[in-house]
Amino acid sequence: MNTFSTDATAVFNRRESEARSYCRSFPTVFASARNATLTTSDGRDYIDFLAGCSTLNYGHNDPDMKAALIDYIAADGVAHGLDMHTHAKAAFIETFERLVLKPRGMDHKIMFTGPTGTNAVEAAMKLARKVTGRQTIIAFTNGFHGMTMGALSATGNAAKRAGAGGASLAGTARMPYEGAFGADADTLAQIETMLDNPSSGIDAPAAFIVEPVQGEGGLNAASKKWMQGIARIARKHGALLIVDDIQAGVGRTGTFFSFDDYGIVPDMIPMAKSLSGMGLPMAVLLIKPEHDIWAPAEHNGTFRGNNHAFVTARVALEKFWSDDSFAASVRKKGDFLEKRLTAMADELLSGASLKGRGMMRGIDVGSGELAGKICAECFRNGLIIETSGAHDEVVKVLAPLTIPMEQLSAGLDILENSIAANVAPMRVAAE
Amino acid sequence: MNTFSTDATAVFNRRESEARSYCRSFPTVFASARNATLTTSDGRDYIDFLAGCSTLNYGHNDPDMKAALIDYIAADGVAHGLDMHTHAKAAFIETFERLVLKPRGMDHKIMFTGPTGTNAVEAAMKLARKVTGRQTIIAFTNGFHGMTMGALSATGNAAKRAGAGGASLAGTARMPYEGAFGADADTLAQIETMLDNPSSGIDAPAAFIVEPVQGEGGLNAASKKWMQGIARIARKHGALLIVDDIQAGVGRTGTFFSFDDYGIVPDMIPMAKSLSGMGLPMAVLLIKPEHDIWAPAEHNGTFRGNNHAFVTARVALEKFWSDDSFAASVRKKGDFLEKRLTAMADELLSGASLKGRGMMRGIDVGSGELAGKICAECFRNGLIIETSGAHDEVVKVLAPLTIPMEQLSAGLDILENSIAANVAPMRVAAE
Amino acid sequence: MNTFSTDATAVFNRRESEARSYCRSFPTVFASARNATLTTSDGRDYIDFLAGCSTLNYGHNDPDMKAALIDYIAADGVAHGLDMHTHAKAAFIETFERLVLKPRGMDHKIMFTGPTGTNAVEAAMKLARKVTGRQTIIAFTNGFHGMTMGALSATGNAAKRAGAGGASLAGTARMPYEGAFGADADTLAQIETMLDNPSSGIDAPAAFIVEPVQGEGGLNAASKKWMQGIARIARKHGALLIVDDIQAGVGRTGTFFSFDDYGIVPDMIPMAKSLSGMGLPMAVLLIKPEHDIWAPAEHNGTFRGNNHAFVTARVALEKFWSDDSFAASVRKKGDFLEKRLTAMADELLSGASLKGRGMMRGIDVGSGELAGKICAECFRNGLIIETSGAHDEVVKVLAPLTIPMEQLSAGLDILENSIAANVAPMRVAAE
Amino acid sequence: MNTFSTDATAVFNRRESEARSYCRSFPTVFASARNATLTTSDGRDYIDFLAGCSTLNYGHNDPDMKAALIDYIAADGVAHGLDMHTHAKAAFIETFERLVLKPRGMDHKIMFTGPTGTNAVEAAMKLARKVTGRQTIIAFTNGFHGMTMGALSATGNAAKRAGAGGASLAGTARMPYEGAFGADADTLAQIETMLDNPSSGIDAPAAFIVEPVQGEGGLNAASKKWMQGIARIARKHGALLIVDDIQAGVGRTGTFFSFDDYGIVPDMIPMAKSLSGMGLPMAVLLIKPEHDIWAPAEHNGTFRGNNHAFVTARVALEKFWSDDSFAASVRKKGDFLEKRLTAMADELLSGASLKGRGMMRGIDVGSGELAGKICAECFRNGLIIETSGAHDEVVKVLAPLTIPMEQLSAGLDILENSIAANVAPMRVAAE
Repeated sequence: MNTFSTDATAVFNRRESEARSYCRSFPTVFASARNATLTTSDGRDYIDFLAGCSTLNYGHNDPDMKAALIDYIAADGVAHGLDMHTHAKAAFIETFERLVLKPRGMDHKIMFTGPTGTNAVEAAMKLARKVTGRQTIIAFTNGFHGMTMGALSATGNAAKRAGAGGASLAGTARMPYEGAFGADADTLAQIETMLDNPSSGIDAPAAFIVEPVQGEGGLNAASKKWMQGIARIARKHGALLIVDDIQAGVGRTGTFFSFDDYGIVPDMIPMAKSLSGMGLPMAVLLIKPEHDIWAPAEHNGTFRGNNHAFVTARVALEKFWSDDSFAASVRKKGDFLEKRLTAMADELLSGASLKGRGMMRGIDVGSGELAGKICAECFRNGLIIETSGAHDEVVKVLAPLTIPMEQLSAGLDILENSIAANVAPMRVAAE
Repeated sequence: MNTFSTDATAVFNRRESEARSYCRSFPTVFASARNATLTTSDGRDYIDFLAGCSTLNYGHNDPDMKAALIDYIAADGVAHGLDMHTHAKAAFIETFERLVLKPRGMDHKIMFTGPTGTNAVEAAMKLARKVTGRQTIIAFTNGFHGMTMGALSATGNAAKRAGAGGASLAGTARMPYEGAFGADADTLAQIETMLDNPSSGIDAPAAFIVEPVQGEGGLNAASKKWMQGIARIARKHGALLIVDDIQAGVGRTGTFFSFDDYGIVPDMIPMAKSLSGMGLPMAVLLIKPEHDIWAPAEHNGTFRGNNHAFVTARVALEKFWSDDSFAASVRKKGDFLEKRLTAMADELLSGASLKGRGMMRGIDVGSGELAGKICAECFRNGLIIETSGAHDEVVKVLAPLTIPMEQLSAGLDILENSIAANVAPMRVAAE
Repeated sequence: MNTFSTDATAVFNRRESEARSYCRSFPTVFASARNATLTTSDGRDYIDFLAGCSTLNYGHNDPDMKAALIDYIAADGVAHGLDMHTHAKAAFIETFERLVLKPRGMDHKIMFTGPTGTNAVEAAMKLARKVTGRQTIIAFTNGFHGMTMGALSATGNAAKRAGAGGASLAGTARMPYEGAFGADADTLAQIETMLDNPSSGIDAPAAFIVEPVQGEGGLNAASKKWMQGIARIARKHGALLIVDDIQAGVGRTGTFFSFDDYGIVPDMIPMAKSLSGMGLPMAVLLIKPEHDIWAPAEHNGTFRGNNHAFVTARVALEKFWSDDSFAASVRKKGDFLEKRLTAMADELLSGASLKGRGMMRGIDVGSGELAGKICAECFRNGLIIETSGAHDEVVKVLAPLTIPMEQLSAGLDILENSIAANVAPMRVAAE
Repeated sequence: MNTFSTDATAVFNRRESEARSYCRSFPTVFASARNATLTTSDGRDYIDFLAGCSTLNYGHNDPDMKAALIDYIAADGVAHGLDMHTHAKAAFIETFERLVLKPRGMDHKIMFTGPTGTNAVEAAMKLARKVTGRQTIIAFTNGFHGMTMGALSATGNAAKRAGAGGASLAGTARMPYEGAFGADADTLAQIETMLDNPSSGIDAPAAFIVEPVQGEGGLNAASKKWMQGIARIARKHGALLIVDDIQAGVGRTGTFFSFDDYGIVPDMIPMAKSLSGMGLPMAVLLIKPEHDIWAPAEHNGTFRGNNHAFVTARVALEKFWSDDSFAASVRKKGDFLEKRLTAMADELLSGASLKGRGMMRGIDVGSGELAGKICAECFRNGLIIETSGAHDEVVKVLAPLTIPMEQLSAGLDILENSIAANVAPMRVAAE
């Protein structure tokens, strides 16, 4: 398709910043992709268990999205529209309203932020402060919300926080996520104690920002009870509830929102990643109408009108969310995934634990070193898979939700063999 | 193309956040666009003097970019690649290296940040602090750098800063841009005095962040001498020079970088807007290699691998920057624009002044009220045009650089008539 | 002694700021004082169970301190010395070294900060950041460290934090004090979990700042084991240990430092309140020599050389700390106090709990309303006593350590009667 | 008076923190002092041209203050009173009201803050934010306001700011003091331009904090016109005017407040240093009643009721401010001082300039090295004198206002000779 030098990776080493990361784990050059398969320039296929970190829930290059997008481009559809009204945007909004908001009785307004998750999070944090007149936002251990200064202040990871170069990441207070102090500690009670105590030093919060499943933080999945508790504490203390569904949303856990079954109505919901369907940059912030007190242009962004993404996002909603069949298939695959991973954890790894929910699953193998070896072995055997967690100790399965069962199974076989290959020698060595 | 309700704007009023802005000035729904023409769903054409705020320097839907992108999509080219190596990315980097960096002797590394200008600015600010171990970043009056918390701290506009909801926008110190204190004040000398004085209260800066032409701030154009002065002061005080070329770059002023003729080599250059050529979200930060001390993933973003944008960006470079002909045509149009706007300022408006440089031009008409009326009149007559400046007092011409001369002239005719229509009654009224 | 208007309190209402507080609880005008007795201008005596909030551990106007101070003044001893060498300062330092530091094997340096506790705390926080190159200081629920912006950021009380007028109180992270989550929660383990987890969002701390007994926070007394745990966690994580002994120090708990029996060696110890002996403003920061990396004048303050205070502080050390007899008497009175207060709590108040340690004791009566009524009743009956705690729910006994047993007993009788008077009607009403 | 070791300074080197500073310039031990004379333990007299950095405007150990204080102590007057009503406090307030506030028509309330200047400044900054609901406080180049975190954020000196250890000194914006950009620059106009421009990046200020004469910053004296300009700009922009008269107040410039002749009424006035008369720690914040919105105890401090200081402060007011004779004598001495210093500057030093106002005067000798040598030579010849300014380039005369003319003259003779001794060789060397 394009011409470039023989050593395909040389140009990256020569000219791309040291900040690059995934390409270090997968040192090859990809040319094309379809559903759960990535193909390199020399024709090798890989099964994709990374899926753009949950950005490609519908797989690569869905044919219906492709077709709609090609038609749109061919017809000179507006590509870049700032926040001007366009057909493509209207169609997306109407479809989102019809298939997502109305069925759930949600009257949220849709804010089109700059097309990145971190931008939607920044908008949410700014708006929560503006609405409440308070500054502190409660964030959680192992939370990840983005890398720009506002979102980064709510992100827990020390290596990522180090990128601020020592600048003050003020404005947040940190509370334990469910399970952070072990199974026995009642973190809800502790959070409530902190907020009820006027001498705790935790100022009255503007908002709580929480992920129902912590993707980057190690696939920690909060229970319905815990999420309801957070919602209750937030309401009691006059704080808004921001549920960051950027990674766990859009079907990943078996429902459109990851909290669909949780009986909570967040005040704001940042969304991005799989929302556009085809991996094109797009982000929105859903806002309860009573909180939508923005002045015009008070938060904006040049690329908030990425109409190509609106086109594919609309097709994705129509194709996958017009009825429950897709969600049901995800739940079924999620059960299969759970069984396979549980078996691996039990049979191959002592002390390993299953993490996550739906098709957002992983195995905590106990150390980042082991997890890294397993992933590297997988890559050698044709599987793209990555780690997460505070110590990179969780091997994370984020396959496209549309992956065929046989391919899912094949990928899990590779994973199983890679675990076995890395664990067996260790056991032998230990004996 | 898509089905939607009869009243095409109803859905926006019903469901889109109050943050929306441009659509309020242009209350119609656009369906398609080609070069400098935007077409509504009911077939009305508008001349586009906004060009996505300088994101569409090559106009809408350039046929070569369209073709390349359709081919790429049709061939299942990787759309979303995180920061994995892809053909499309390699081809962009090689082309950018060959046509932009090498001819200028620039050894900068390319960092692919989240695909928004604000994200590239955030990365630059974080890295400058990390490199220098200092915190303060010098920003300028009327500067605009983005809306996420880090970039917003460097942005001057009070209405936009209000969006932070009172959260601390710390970490920057504000200095006067060239001309901010009138033509006679030597702002360079004042800045130097502040930094030379160890009791000034301005801490040793990590960086200066400056736009060669301030787009949002009122089309203020810094002189070569002033920019060199800032570069010298930065170097003298051990601070990095970040030149934000997001709006003024990619040919807008008649050269690829707006500072190409200025004899300076910035340490970092955030780029976005027109970089992708077709208006698709894309941003990079150019970094001198000695400052590229990021740890892997220390700054990242899900959509940093927007390969569709890499495809169109490569085509744009090849088509418009393989030789000087495009740049020469821009300079020629810029001269024409200058003449026409000068005439309008002189003949129709007393006390109005010409602002800007190249094809980034405007007229300061003295008040936001008048500027708003002129733009509204233009819209009624088929021209999309907007204001900028601290008081929205500048009518801003940001036509596609590829606009045909006749269409540019026609648009200026509309502008001239709209000025006349709004100024004449005022004169009469004043008499 | 001085002439003033008939209505002695009118001038205060007329001209003193609304910030005044204690005078609202004790609406009379005091003229003189001796040991534990305060006498008003019209000759009424009050027993003083407030003792300047533990500033008057040796009572009012100790005759030996008075004599030495009068001699010093009469001989034109330097009153104000900035940080110049004076006889009085040398004598204080030598005495402090001989009677306090050397017997404990402490090689700490003495920093004379501005003569207020908050200033010593500010110096400690600044120095901890300078020494470690880190920013976050771990402070505890219900901690009180002062009212200037640095110290206030470590203070928990919401009403006091509100005084910052919304300014950012950044730079601290808040952890639970022993018992903050109930008797069963292992707060040490939780703190350690937070710091061990690189994704907790708690940045590597510069220091822990902790009071062995929280005076303002409700007379919460940490155990030896807990304080050792904090010391261990601090050391493990490269953080300095700042033990704020401003209120609990100088004998209040039965030893000179409140942590003398705890087997810990703090890196820094802010001291103030009773240090000068006679209630004159004086504060010091004790610093382990390896951390004393201040540049000359890098932290200073006009009144850091309050030589009158140095004179009385020296006399206090010589008189009360040359042997163990004073400390023994304090412990004996503390036991007596414990017995009396326990009896009151058990017999008069259901659910009341004893708080504190040594002669820093109180009863948590369950509500600020009841505690306020009890104190008001005490005042009517000749006893100065105040509340503390997050809800002002603790009636606090801070008698001079030198109070005669009979007067201590008499004061406690008043307290007992006042509790009875306020509890009985409530019980009757409840029946 | 006290017993201590033979080498009187050894104990300081052994045990006092490295933060100590003045004692390094004056390496001797002082025992007693009277008016403008400091006497060492071995009987050597020094003329005091430092006067506790303007804390001893009435000299050391004024006999009337001494007598009143000794009487007060002997009669068991309350020494430490928290903020409880005492005779001594009432008498001070009434006297201050009668002799200072009423004659000037000032209805300010008096807030007794912790007894240090920095504490009064912190209170002012907090209150200004609380009153206005804004955060930014405008501070000036070369301003000095204290060393605790709030006040330090308004202090310009880089060496002092370094003491924060890198912690964020946010919440202030820095503007040029009169003359900071040279005699020709109109700093008032520039400040107004910055505040009038809604895109300047300077947020609407809560307050301006300004010293009429910058003591630590180099004896820069603002003109009446400039101070009025600042007052006008503050009022226009809804900001409070805080005039920090800690160093320049209490007669130093020839009037009680340094701005008495300036036709301005500050919203808040932090006072400290010479207010107590005898050098005892005391500070107040004067607040216009409409801004006195503190909740009780919202800002407090243990030593805010330093009654010894109230006694001497009252005597000082009665003795020196009952009529104009003292102020007249100060003005006369100020004129004499001006003449002598002008002569030295003109005759001995080329390019030296006179700084300051009233009896707050100095010579800018062009370099800190020369100024340091001159002061060291003075000390060898029996004169205590120090430098100030961003580069320590100003030799500063801060003699007690009560110094006899002959002693003032004698001190100036020493200074003149010391200049000559240090300048002559340099001239010779230069020839």
